[in-house]
Amino acid sequence: MTIIRQPITGFSNPAVKAARALREKKHRKREARFLAEGLRLLTEAREAGIVPDTLFVGQQRDPHPLIDALEHAVTDGGGVIYETTTDILAKISGKDNPQTVLGIFADLPTSLDRLDRLDRDRSGIWLVAQSLRDPGNLGTMLRTCDAVGAGGLILIDQCVDPFSVEAVRASMGAIFTVPLAHAEWGDFLRWLRAGPGQLVGTSLNTAVDYRAADYPRPCFVLIGNEAQGLPAAYEAACDLLVRIPMLGKADSLNAAVAAAVMAYEVLARQR
Amino acid sequence: MTIIRQPITGFSNPAVKAARALREKKHRKREARFLAEGLRLLTEAREAGIVPDTLFVGQQRDPHPLIDALEHAVTDGGGVIYETTTDILAKISGKDNPQTVLGIFADLPTSLDRLDRLDRDRSGIWLVAQSLRDPGNLGTMLRTCDAVGAGGLILIDQCVDPFSVEAVRASMGAIFTVPLAHAEWGDFLRWLRAGPGQLVGTSLNTAVDYRAADYPRPCFVLIGNEAQGLPAAYEAACDLLVRIPMLGKADSLNAAVAAAVMAYEVLARQR
Repeated sequence: MTIIRQPITGFSNPAVKAARALREKKHRKREARFLAEGLRLLTEAREAGIVPDTLFVGQQRDPHPLIDALEHAVTDGGGVIYETTTDILAKISGKDNPQTVLGIFADLPTSLDRLDRLDRDRSGIWLVAQSLRDPGNLGTMLRTCDAVGAGGLILIDQCVDPFSVEAVRASMGAIFTVPLAHAEWGDFLRWLRAGPGQLVGTSLNTAVDYRAADYPRPCFVLIGNEAQGLPAAYEAACDLLVRIPMLGKADSLNAAVAAAVMAYEVLARQR
Repeated sequence: MTIIRQPITGFSNPAVKAARALREKKHRKREARFLAEGLRLLTEAREAGIVPDTLFVGQQRDPHPLIDALEHAVTDGGGVIYETTTDILAKISGKDNPQTVLGIFADLPTSLDRLDRLDRDRSGIWLVAQSLRDPGNLGTMLRTCDAVGAGGLILIDQCVDPFSVEAVRASMGAIFTVPLAHAEWGDFLRWLRAGPGQLVGTSLNTAVDYRAADYPRPCFVLIGNEAQGLPAAYEAACDLLVRIPMLGKADSLNAAVAAAVMAYEVLARQR
């Protein structure tokens, strides 16, 4: 199949404006599409069977078989390819040194219904994050889910947009490979209690050291909001609360760090 | 002692311009001073005996004994206090919802000589980060050092500025309480080998699982650059290489996450 690349040289091209607008949440919500940058991320997506509807490639790019593969996948999928300047790529991405490929994707599904179609036993670990505020933490949690082979990341209540440029970037491609869901707390609890699963919260309101507990499969690790931690009612709903030791001045870890320390402990105990 | 607050109502006030300029690295380097925001961070600093030379407080602030304590400490230290509007605080901090207190501090010492005056045995864990690029990762590593009671964080080769607004913010105050040093690799190795200490690198080039190793005190955990990992020569200089399992598509963890997973493993094994 022939690869057709439409040249764009003007900053005021509507395709450039539309892509750039996706850096803002309101446009992203309205379009239900998001931006992902870089050959590595876009290749992760392609290998997971997810192809952008729009691909921007830089005129200055070096030839690369993975770019060829990407262009073929976009063309096969009926998408459009734009070839443009580094300056225009920088304008879209908001970075001085933009990646040479950039894709626009339809939002990925995030309903709990989707998780119902997955087997929750297929993994021993799930991460559950409540009212997460920081896109970097969200992306990093997805990356950690990938690393420990977690079943997925479940976002509870009002969380930062997982499809923001910052979250997608921090996920290093895991946004495309790790199942993601979003639910209100009550809906999540109903879903959880309809099947097997231990809900483990990290908290300072317990004497149980995280290294001294058992984590039967599947284990759902619940991490609280960056500033407030878990609400008392959420802690009360947990099957187990564990404490990560804090030996210094501060009373909490970064949320993505706490999630990873717990996830690797659960992984080690289940192995 | 009487607290004197100088009112600032104009955006063009030189003190506002000088504070705002500290968000840029070149100004920060020239002035050897940095910005820290928020009552929590500034209180951490004060409790560690570190007081800003300049304090901005918002006109709209609620009375708080910790603000009083801060104002007294600044006054006792001969510093200056400015009382200003939320809009001007927002201009200085670059955030729409600025904190109501903001301080300017002289750069903290980062020489290896300083570590020589510390007892390296006083902690079982030190973090060592090579060519770190992301200020959030740096701040998060400081926060993790505080949490595990690490001796300090040693930055190797060219790293992101630890006194950037983003790094200071991510440290959640640990910038003031965790000893920090910066050194070239050769100088660090000479310093390390002049005393006790095991250098442990995380790598995929080993079959040794991180859960299966011993970590005698003091253990120096070496974390490589976000994109490239550790150079081969640096790995070769380690006493031990260990592998953190990676079960997914990606071949690395976030650098701050890897540091924390290692730090908590070392802590648990040494307890």
